[in-house]
Amino acid sequence: MKPKIAIIPGDTSGIGPELIARLITSDGVREAADILLIGDRHVLEAGMAVAGCSYDLDPVDPGTDWTGTAGVAFYEMATITPDAVEVAEVTEAGGASVLRTLDQALEFTQNGVTDAIVFGPFNKASMHLAGLGHDDELHYMAEKLGVDTYISELNTLDGMWTSRVTSHVPLRAVAEMISEERVHEAVHLIHRTLRRSGVERPRISVAAINPHAGDNGNFGTEEIDVLEPAVKKLAETQMSVDGPWPSDTVFLKAVAKEIDAVVTMYHDQGQIALKLLGFDRGVTVQGGLPIPVSTPAHGTAFDIAGQGRADVGATRAAFDIACDMVTHWHKE
Amino acid sequence: MKPKIAIIPGDTSGIGPELIARLITSDGVREAADILLIGDRHVLEAGMAVAGCSYDLDPVDPGTDWTGTAGVAFYEMATITPDAVEVAEVTEAGGASVLRTLDQALEFTQNGVTDAIVFGPFNKASMHLAGLGHDDELHYMAEKLGVDTYISELNTLDGMWTSRVTSHVPLRAVAEMISEERVHEAVHLIHRTLRRSGVERPRISVAAINPHAGDNGNFGTEEIDVLEPAVKKLAETQMSVDGPWPSDTVFLKAVAKEIDAVVTMYHDQGQIALKLLGFDRGVTVQGGLPIPVSTPAHGTAFDIAGQGRADVGATRAAFDIACDMVTHWHKE
Repeated sequence: MKPKIAIIPGDTSGIGPELIARLITSDGVREAADILLIGDRHVLEAGMAVAGCSYDLDPVDPGTDWTGTAGVAFYEMATITPDAVEVAEVTEAGGASVLRTLDQALEFTQNGVTDAIVFGPFNKASMHLAGLGHDDELHYMAEKLGVDTYISELNTLDGMWTSRVTSHVPLRAVAEMISEERVHEAVHLIHRTLRRSGVERPRISVAAINPHAGDNGNFGTEEIDVLEPAVKKLAETQMSVDGPWPSDTVFLKAVAKEIDAVVTMYHDQGQIALKLLGFDRGVTVQGGLPIPVSTPAHGTAFDIAGQGRADVGATRAAFDIACDMVTHWHKE
Repeated sequence: MKPKIAIIPGDTSGIGPELIARLITSDGVREAADILLIGDRHVLEAGMAVAGCSYDLDPVDPGTDWTGTAGVAFYEMATITPDAVEVAEVTEAGGASVLRTLDQALEFTQNGVTDAIVFGPFNKASMHLAGLGHDDELHYMAEKLGVDTYISELNTLDGMWTSRVTSHVPLRAVAEMISEERVHEAVHLIHRTLRRSGVERPRISVAAINPHAGDNGNFGTEEIDVLEPAVKKLAETQMSVDGPWPSDTVFLKAVAKEIDAVVTMYHDQGQIALKLLGFDRGVTVQGGLPIPVSTPAHGTAFDIAGQGRADVGATRAAFDIACDMVTHWHKE
């Protein structure tokens, strides 16, 4: 059976609606999955106009078997009026539209109407204006889905994955937060996520926290006290895990395809590398949720919104990963 | 007048002697400077044999005008016996040879016999075996030259320069060490060094320490408390300085040639970026010394030592920068 993918266009002021139009009309996309588009007809049609392509929207009843429509299956909502859509602007209306369509996609996927969610880029400032009280959409989704276990954004680019043990915290707080338990959670999460995206035996490297991996304790002891024991225990299981590696060389291993994933200790450790390698072409997977959710790693790109210049590559990659995750979701 | 460059081959077990042979015989090198080679004849000749090229060594008296020789001016020393040279091995003899030739090059350059030093790759482990008590060669040279002011390695690659406010310290110690004074020292050093390498008005960006540059204080306050005031004061002078910028995007500005230099807060912040961009092709300048000293950024490369496969690119770049620094050394 084909994966059933719920797709929402994301922030109405950004490039999301254009990207979704390009995605739907890309070669092989409609063959790869049964797609259920969720949102406002005028938003999706505006996206088609900007992208310069079109497809038919076929309204369906999600309570029945909605697959097999001639056009693209469509669950129509009224989340924003046409005159409230302001291109390239942070607006409360845009944020509210995102939250309502996201809620609907979550509900459908929890109930089995769909198997996974792909969303166009969100704008956090707009979502905060619309009442989002969480740090980000991952924490919002986790609460909606009743998740109280470890969650983390995972980034992937050209087959290289990263996760992080700490994220949006001051650098001075990082060292104290590095524990064997957190490292185990981060490694298990990325291991499971890679297996679910179709990598049978993921090769995972753990980054050190200190320069030169602490140089045998001369520049910090977290490697000796925490990371080496943590990696040793993990390597004793069936997993392929090594490290801790100096963080200025571990990404060279990933670029050389010697490994599939790097578990980083802090936000910029991974992001410096990913952004230099072309982060905007990458995908973000919302890790730790009970359902597959993916999105392009780039943002709403207000600088080119409405101009018909958005590149669909990252959105296509997000769609492909969502399909893979549905196929392999039973794996641990 | 042409710059007078002292050149020493570096660790005798590594690729240094081969690189020096390739450098001396490269197009334009002998035209660009008067070169004084310092070291053991058999070491330099072994380098020629590995490189498959040769040149004439003309012994000179450094107490006289030694320029204008037909071959390459040569100050012969006996620092290591031929049978003590072990290719691709960490040896006390190799480290001792480096320290003796380096001492001689420092003395000559202090006394005006030469204007600058270029050295082939050193091996720190060998130097420690030979009695080096300092963290690295920069601290050794600083003590020899009586420097007690701010010193720092500067790395440069394809016209992009970096320096760091902290270096070989545990990550947990970094935040506490970031002060306005240290940031000012790091910015002034890289500004002066770039001017001395021929960049009339260096454009310098200061990296933030926290993720998203602290996100207005949500993920750390060093940007508000230290970095913003420091940059503001610097920008009020004649310097082109901005920041603090999120460290996962500031290197994109450097790659795009919008800026010349990034001042980083900690070791891996800059090294992750530089190594991904091809650090091994880059140059290290020993910043804060009273004389110009440069070296290729890569190491002794024991894996290819003696095989005739070493790439002279970084050594040539180090030589060119040393010549530029001699020409512009009067600048502040």
